[in-house]
Amino acid sequence: MGTKENKFAELSNIIRERHSIRHYDPDFKISEDEIREIIKEAVYAPSGNNLQSWRFLIITDQKLKEKIFTASNDQKQVLEASALIIVLGDLKGYEQVELIYTRSVKEGIVTEKFKNAKVAKVKNTFEKETSRYGNPNWKRDLVLIDGSLAAMQLMLAAKAKGYDTVPMIGYNTEQLRKILNIPDRYVNVLMIPIGKAAQPAHRTIRLSVDEITFWNGIE
Amino acid sequence: MGTKENKFAELSNIIRERHSIRHYDPDFKISEDEIREIIKEAVYAPSGNNLQSWRFLIITDQKLKEKIFTASNDQKQVLEASALIIVLGDLKGYEQVELIYTRSVKEGIVTEKFKNAKVAKVKNTFEKETSRYGNPNWKRDLVLIDGSLAAMQLMLAAKAKGYDTVPMIGYNTEQLRKILNIPDRYVNVLMIPIGKAAQPAHRTIRLSVDEITFWNGIE
Repeated sequence: MGTKENKFAELSNIIRERHSIRHYDPDFKISEDEIREIIKEAVYAPSGNNLQSWRFLIITDQKLKEKIFTASNDQKQVLEASALIIVLGDLKGYEQVELIYTRSVKEGIVTEKFKNAKVAKVKNTFEKETSRYGNPNWKRDLVLIDGSLAAMQLMLAAKAKGYDTVPMIGYNTEQLRKILNIPDRYVNVLMIPIGKAAQPAHRTIRLSVDEITFWNGIE
Repeated sequence: MGTKENKFAELSNIIRERHSIRHYDPDFKISEDEIREIIKEAVYAPSGNNLQSWRFLIITDQKLKEKIFTASNDQKQVLEASALIIVLGDLKGYEQVELIYTRSVKEGIVTEKFKNAKVAKVKNTFEKETSRYGNPNWKRDLVLIDGSLAAMQLMLAAKAKGYDTVPMIGYNTEQLRKILNIPDRYVNVLMIPIGKAAQPAHRTIRLSVDEITFWNGIE
């Protein structure tokens, strides 16, 4: 994995090989173990206070996929992909703060004192602050951001294993939540079909770097 | 870049080498060209309808960093990192739909007919749908998700180049917006200091895959 130049080229390769795939080989199945390996890489993503509020609801049952197909405006990838990985953000994820920091103490990463201060501060913030810096959506924003960071690593890890994905947002989330009986605490981030491409992706273009960057001020 | 096994190992390496770094060498400067190279990789991320609503406000001016330092509750990385990359989501990003799909036609990726239908549909959806599937925040959600996907690739690309980052969310976004005069159309996604680590990261733990996954239903 050698030099810096090599690493950047290797990563760039995986990044550029990943394309959103909408046609999957319906006979190709990815094992549950491989899905676990991919998720394991995904969750090395960073998260606010290391709260890791991402959750993954994985659908492999064909009958469930058929129901979800109707909630997706009949997008074929939902039926044909090996699995659907529904990325959720847990608005109550902060309740794991004690568990997470207790383990960190056990691993010798932080002190008991640090843990106690962190647990108190996180609980206080999440339980009492209905708005942060004028943003009443701050908790929802947080789980969407953290869930998306993990989702991006998930899609890259899938590609590095030779599989394909497509991040979906344009489906009927209300209907999906009813079908799967998803509790209110979980926010929809993305639905990601994963499988083996049956057709190559169509290319897409990108705006140039200069069209999307500002230096030291806007305008 | 060889075999599938190699690729997964190479990616895993970069993913696991990335740590949130809070202490930077204040004398180390990353060139603007290198920052552009990193952003170029970042924006190969997918986005809804390929609208690419991510925007990057890059701060290299030390006086501006000093002002932002006060809005960050005095977090040292803001002063010491080579640059701050403020990831924004443009709520009016959809207005680029015509430009993006006109270029796609020119590249022979889609037909004129496809373009016209896409432009009409996107404009109609963004201009008229105040709520989607019961979610009044759908536009904000979208730019947060797409911006975060690009941000994750940005942090990995920085690491692959030998640089370090830390995704920040716990700063005074209201104050930051005032300091930088950020128009309302741009949503704060993350602020990412980038530079050369002055101290190694402290390790962090992760919940196990089984603790954050559900198979074919919740509970």
